[in-house]
Amino acid sequence: MQLPESITICEVGPRDGLQNEKHILSAQRKIELINDVVNAGVKVVEIGSFVSPKAVPQLADTDEVAKGIARRPEVEYRALISNLKGMERAIFAGITKVKLTVSASESHNKSNWNRSTTEVIRGFYDAMELAAKSGLEVSGAISTAFGCPFEGNIPRKQILDLVQTFISMGVTEISLSDTTGMAYPSQVYEVGKRARELFPSVRFWLHLHNTRGLAMANMLAGMQAGIVRFDASFSGLGGCPYAPGASGNVATEDVIHMCDLININTGINLDKMIEIAQEVRQDVRHETESFILKAGKSLVLSTRDLDKLKREV
Amino acid sequence: MQLPESITICEVGPRDGLQNEKHILSAQRKIELINDVVNAGVKVVEIGSFVSPKAVPQLADTDEVAKGIARRPEVEYRALISNLKGMERAIFAGITKVKLTVSASESHNKSNWNRSTTEVIRGFYDAMELAAKSGLEVSGAISTAFGCPFEGNIPRKQILDLVQTFISMGVTEISLSDTTGMAYPSQVYEVGKRARELFPSVRFWLHLHNTRGLAMANMLAGMQAGIVRFDASFSGLGGCPYAPGASGNVATEDVIHMCDLININTGINLDKMIEIAQEVRQDVRHETESFILKAGKSLVLSTRDLDKLKREV
Repeated sequence: MQLPESITICEVGPRDGLQNEKHILSAQRKIELINDVVNAGVKVVEIGSFVSPKAVPQLADTDEVAKGIARRPEVEYRALISNLKGMERAIFAGITKVKLTVSASESHNKSNWNRSTTEVIRGFYDAMELAAKSGLEVSGAISTAFGCPFEGNIPRKQILDLVQTFISMGVTEISLSDTTGMAYPSQVYEVGKRARELFPSVRFWLHLHNTRGLAMANMLAGMQAGIVRFDASFSGLGGCPYAPGASGNVATEDVIHMCDLININTGINLDKMIEIAQEVRQDVRHETESFILKAGKSLVLSTRDLDKLKREV
Repeated sequence: MQLPESITICEVGPRDGLQNEKHILSAQRKIELINDVVNAGVKVVEIGSFVSPKAVPQLADTDEVAKGIARRPEVEYRALISNLKGMERAIFAGITKVKLTVSASESHNKSNWNRSTTEVIRGFYDAMELAAKSGLEVSGAISTAFGCPFEGNIPRKQILDLVQTFISMGVTEISLSDTTGMAYPSQVYEVGKRARELFPSVRFWLHLHNTRGLAMANMLAGMQAGIVRFDASFSGLGGCPYAPGASGNVATEDVIHMCDLININTGINLDKMIEIAQEVRQDVRHETESFILKAGKSLVLSTRDLDKLKREV
């Protein structure tokens, strides 16, 4: 079983986590949380999104958040945008990295942005031009890459074509998102492997939700396909509180917990992350999907001598 | 990614699932549920346990259940026992297959049976003798094989030694149980692979709990190590309702759901199993840990032409 020695986790809690919460956190609290996860060792944070405040009132203050956070040179603070207007707001807020997002599914683009896939992508070109002028780094995200709640299966070719489209625009860091938790391990492995073979210079991310209990299995499959970058959300936020079945993002603390057991380095302190996740659970005022918050970490991590175990196994 | 074409699932809901429930089901209801899962395609069922009714009042009527179920020749109806007395009750109830269980951890044996590991095993010999005389098939189970809530890490040698002990008693079907959800994928893979290399004639089972969110990832790792037999519990029962963090067994319907997506044959009808799991959730009168009961099955399974997808991928 080929697994990586280290992975990079992007903390998407401030964006994908908080964007569905009933109780809206203040900009000040978001700033604190972003600073806290960075202090715990997180090197990539998605701090919010520059989209319509009407559509996502929870993130309407991303401009203020962007201006308030402590900036560390070694940390990437990225924000999600969907068009030129978002890019302009990002530049104005001093953000140096953005993520352009499009759905692999025609129906999902219609439902999310009220535009066809082609129209969404066309909108990217102006944004890319402005980014180039302003020296912003741009990454891409393909949502519903592993299945669409309207269309069902997404043919692999459709995803790979979108990757090619991003590359032709100069984007070489691309997130494959299982937006509604429809991915399964053999699919993640095959898609991941093929994508890396075809586009070896692209840095691929996986964005996994645990809706059907497969986030960790999918992550393991992704790692075996050579993917080493994963989104995760503190406390497992990201489910829709209005739809009881919709589980959130895979929880950051759950991912670090698994990686610590396997000896995959994340660079993030598990205990600090658990503390943050506990606070977040209080912030949002409801139980969350995090396993480690409920069960506590494995005694093995509390007691074992890692080197000893390594020799023994 | 090497995955099996088919796996066998043992439905342990009637035993490990119900044994921790506050609300005790009637023998008649248990009989119905066992007949129902068999009708859905389950080929191995753990129908109960012949242990002290004081210790596990929920399963005090396993004798009655054993006598009441419809017996199909192609189905294995097994019961859990821990000593000679259990074996006698099993024989009297007409059970033809039992599972002798011992913990890999000294402290866990003490806490569960109030005996040392050696004492528990010594008790097996009389039971094995009686089983041989009576023509009962005996399988073995090693609980806390992947970690003990008292002792932490369980050295792999300790597990492999217990496998050897079982073999020397004539037991060649052995379940490795992650009793409190401490297993992690690389461990399951390494233990499973080594166990199969050392003991190629043994049929190994994996018994996984989702306490720390890793049951499916561990199952995937087990499959990659060549293990093709897995316990699962309808509706994901098996957590302790008194301890909120203690998640249950991996849910049978969640396992079938993943396998149907991957095209791993389980021989069990997913829709029928989901119906049973829904009824079980009503029977036990509380929300359960099943993902598919909450989220529903992936649209891909409802719409896709499996053969078409197979060709496409």
